[in-house]
Amino acid sequence: MSQQIDHVVIGNAPQMPPGPLVEVESSRRRTPAEEARTLVHSHSVCSLATLTEDGAPWASMVTYGVMDDGNPVFYVSTLAEHGRALHRDGRASIVVVDLDRPRAGVDPLDTGRVTLQGTAHIPQSDTELEAARAAHFAAMPMAKLYQGFGDFDFWVLEVDQVRWVGGYGRMDSADATSYAEAEPDPVAHGAAHAIEHMNADHADALLIMARTIGGHPDATAARAVRIDRYGMDLEADTPRGEWASAARIPFAETLGAPEDLRAATVAAARRARELAATEPSSHGATGAV
Amino acid sequence: MSQQIDHVVIGNAPQMPPGPLVEVESSRRRTPAEEARTLVHSHSVCSLATLTEDGAPWASMVTYGVMDDGNPVFYVSTLAEHGRALHRDGRASIVVVDLDRPRAGVDPLDTGRVTLQGTAHIPQSDTELEAARAAHFAAMPMAKLYQGFGDFDFWVLEVDQVRWVGGYGRMDSADATSYAEAEPDPVAHGAAHAIEHMNADHADALLIMARTIGGHPDATAARAVRIDRYGMDLEADTPRGEWASAARIPFAETLGAPEDLRAATVAAARRARELAATEPSSHGATGAV
Repeated sequence: MSQQIDHVVIGNAPQMPPGPLVEVESSRRRTPAEEARTLVHSHSVCSLATLTEDGAPWASMVTYGVMDDGNPVFYVSTLAEHGRALHRDGRASIVVVDLDRPRAGVDPLDTGRVTLQGTAHIPQSDTELEAARAAHFAAMPMAKLYQGFGDFDFWVLEVDQVRWVGGYGRMDSADATSYAEAEPDPVAHGAAHAIEHMNADHADALLIMARTIGGHPDATAARAVRIDRYGMDLEADTPRGEWASAARIPFAETLGAPEDLRAATVAAARRARELAATEPSSHGATGAV
Repeated sequence: MSQQIDHVVIGNAPQMPPGPLVEVESSRRRTPAEEARTLVHSHSVCSLATLTEDGAPWASMVTYGVMDDGNPVFYVSTLAEHGRALHRDGRASIVVVDLDRPRAGVDPLDTGRVTLQGTAHIPQSDTELEAARAAHFAAMPMAKLYQGFGDFDFWVLEVDQVRWVGGYGRMDSADATSYAEAEPDPVAHGAAHAIEHMNADHADALLIMARTIGGHPDATAARAVRIDRYGMDLEADTPRGEWASAARIPFAETLGAPEDLRAATVAAARRARELAATEPSSHGATGAV
């Protein structure tokens, strides 16, 4: 599915972080479809691209809810450009950006985002209308107020194409079927808190994980950067150049809820310490952990 | 310029906040073009709408800088869908959303946003290229790294249409000339801090401003919601229903820098207290301030 094409490097350009020095366990990762479903479910504001009368693109902001199959539902007025546009031509696209990430000092291009493209339609049956209404109001309870306006329609975007960009070097497309069938990551809601907690209170455990399970025995520091239902991504400082190394710490089981994160990270730390005790010469060389 | 069309009210729908009870001073406000320039200059990440090969809309995320005339400058790779799209058809649109505003409990549709639409071109002269490069890197210094990639182009979006939405009941269009000529509000950078400070430490002054200058003698509490170079918008609680009332407090002079905000708000508070002292029966009725 991946069709990664390399940039045309003509100078001193950024590179991918160095990988592990030693062989590591393979780790399941979220599929691009799971990444997309997770990001789309985590937000309720997106940018919408529609077509003007001349067939030119028009960007605007809308709120959305999500149907069970991942199709977004808008609730927009015909007084707005995008509302009139959808009535003329239902072809539309949204981009959902991981709003919590862009911050001072963080490259915004390293922020996760998902483009969904397809065709929007007004629900065709009472059943579909009820499902669309429920999906939208679940995400946007305030939008119930607009039910008093006669110029608002629900629109379901039937997704045809999915493009996920997780950040540098993490991007892929997904087809409509795999997107519809994928499950949003149930631990996503607790990930930011878990990352903060691990980095603030368990830097020693992260370092020993990076040195052992992660395959970077020369690591001098490690930080959690992402956590998902299958494992944890670390960034490790090593003597191998200016870019931090990437380490993956798989969880023993696929998690089903944010509450599972604590036990899973504790188990990973225990396993790392056991590995370090088994091979102290390579993993515990500095004696610092 | 305003072409406000009312929603088709069929039930218990939201309404505009009540206005002043008594005649108030007229106050200059930012024009729609000034609002748009201010918002566009305050950010560097936006959503871009381009066209696919089939002429369908495609939404994505890009970073941007701003030329002196307000035209945004992108720096994108032909490896990305939107980079290839611009080479095929330069028609494009962006939406810039006031990212700092959407928060839990705040209706995202009350967030400021601006749509710019026009045609993007690659700079045609060395002078234009230098200006585009400088504008982009001023906003996105990290993007200098991509100069090592041969597949990145600068694109200048020549703005034709501007649509500003400030939130409920605050929206308007601007033409290309007024947008190009408008000045971004120089106090915008300090507005959030000033609002926070006024609400935290000067609630008494805001209340007396709302009762006097603002024209709401029955106000029981007031909060600053927006500050610009021309004045301050307050939200006042009154016994007149569930929606907060809107009050405008004009500044005596047009401000030129965030540092001017302190003196301007102090002067407004002094003027409000003088007015209250002159007509204590109507303005100081409760004796609470």
